Amino acid sequence: MDNNSINKIALIGAGNVATQLGKAFKRSGKSVIQVYSRSKSTAEMLSEVVGAESISDIYQLTNKADLYVISVPDNAITNVLSDIRLKDRLLVHTSGALPMDVLSVASLNIGVFYTLQTFSKEKDIEFKDTPICIEANTTSNKNLLFELAEEISENVRYLDSDLRKIAHLAAVFANNFTNYMYTIALDILEKHNLPFDLIRPLINETAEIIKNNRAYEMQTGPAIRNDEETVRKHLEYLKAYPEYQQIYDMITKSIMTRHKKANEDDKL
Amino acid sequence: MDNNSINKIALIGAGNVATQLGKAFKRSGKSVIQVYSRSKSTAEMLSEVVGAESISDIYQLTNKADLYVISVPDNAITNVLSDIRLKDRLLVHTSGALPMDVLSVASLNIGVFYTLQTFSKEKDIEFKDTPICIEANTTSNKNLLFELAEEISENVRYLDSDLRKIAHLAAVFANNFTNYMYTIALDILEKHNLPFDLIRPLINETAEIIKNNRAYEMQTGPAIRNDEETVRKHLEYLKAYPEYQQIYDMITKSIMTRHKKANEDDKL
Repeated sequence: MDNNSINKIALIGAGNVATQLGKAFKRSGKSVIQVYSRSKSTAEMLSEVVGAESISDIYQLTNKADLYVISVPDNAITNVLSDIRLKDRLLVHTSGALPMDVLSVASLNIGVFYTLQTFSKEKDIEFKDTPICIEANTTSNKNLLFELAEEISENVRYLDSDLRKIAHLAAVFANNFTNYMYTIALDILEKHNLPFDLIRPLINETAEIIKNNRAYEMQTGPAIRNDEETVRKHLEYLKAYPEYQQIYDMITKSIMTRHKKANEDDKL
Repeated sequence: MDNNSINKIALIGAGNVATQLGKAFKRSGKSVIQVYSRSKSTAEMLSEVVGAESISDIYQLTNKADLYVISVPDNAITNVLSDIRLKDRLLVHTSGALPMDVLSVASLNIGVFYTLQTFSKEKDIEFKDTPICIEANTTSNKNLLFELAEEISENVRYLDSDLRKIAHLAAVFANNFTNYMYTIALDILEKHNLPFDLIRPLINETAEIIKNNRAYEMQTGPAIRNDEETVRKHLEYLKAYPEYQQIYDMITKSIMTRHKKANEDDKL
């Protein structure tokens, strides 16, 4: 292993994150030399794209990579790690929620390479703006990972496992729960044969507007206007969807509380 | 009044919606002849932009407009309407939640011109894609409003008051509640001095990806993966924010239920 930079990379896992990372590594001139996936066809699909060898037997894992990126679901990682012994080869995971230390069973040199983005296999991501959060167990590993990350992104920073968990939680609200708000909106529209096109520009503008504004200051709608009559009508309509009704009620109350509190703070 | 098209428009109200509509009307060659706002300075600000007379006394409302657009908060509209008598002049409101009929105290010719978009005064909106939902009490009024709407947008449709309420409710989820998810994410980040830049690209991509995909199918995260360990850790962390904890808990459960149901439906 060349201690001065990472050139040869092995991907353990071939899901959305591994796919987009593999493509980004390749674009920046790195060699992805091997792709492992439990599923032979999944491994082959990604290895073809990045020009790597594909394996579906973890015991065939190469010992020639400068970096091993394990990118499998959080609840599968312990199992996969139990079959890997890398000695001092640098091993990173890509999880927001898992501490770095879970990797210590498999190597002496460990770190985290967490991309704060939502990936699909099909849609390629412009990595330039993608936040990459690095953690590492030594300064030398940290430097290696920073150098690699900065070759694909301009938004790289160091976060320890605790702070990364916070960032991941924020991402759950900003991505997972936001997507669920879209889902509920769509469910309501479809129930009445109304097209998604009705709210598509709104969704776009909602995301656009906070690029230059604080989200809280952009809050509009019945809750922040304290428009109890509209809230009452909405809750009445949502009777047919008890879970959506509860979500509506709770978010509305939280917006009202936060607004009241913000106003009181202003008065102090 | 030329019965064949709308040329002269009076704006009653000078908030975000009135501002963006006024600018759009002007761009499409209409004359905005008067702007009313209770606040003299607000009326003047908008009337300057659109080249109209400004009034802050409702009794000075012109009788020369082809169309009167009342765009004030829902809970203020009844008060303002009580001071307006337009006889047969065409009057529309711009509210998602109010039925058209609230206008009948003020005119015989009424309708709705509901733009399904989030507006600020500062940021001009590309109206071409903005959905405009029209309602009217006669076919002739409907035709007049359609013609006007189609001059500023390619996304115009007729929705009666009941369907408009549904669309508005969907918009509350897609915009108001989505913005609140951003707010919570930001609150969590700021508490730990983490920058919004960490999730900005994620928010962007979350809105981007559903342009070509169904929101539900794009759902990712601990809830849909049934990752109970991560959910437990997040709820534990959120103890310090009881309302955010409840929102997290409820949305997570709803995602899990909906996912289970969708899987069962697949099996039928």
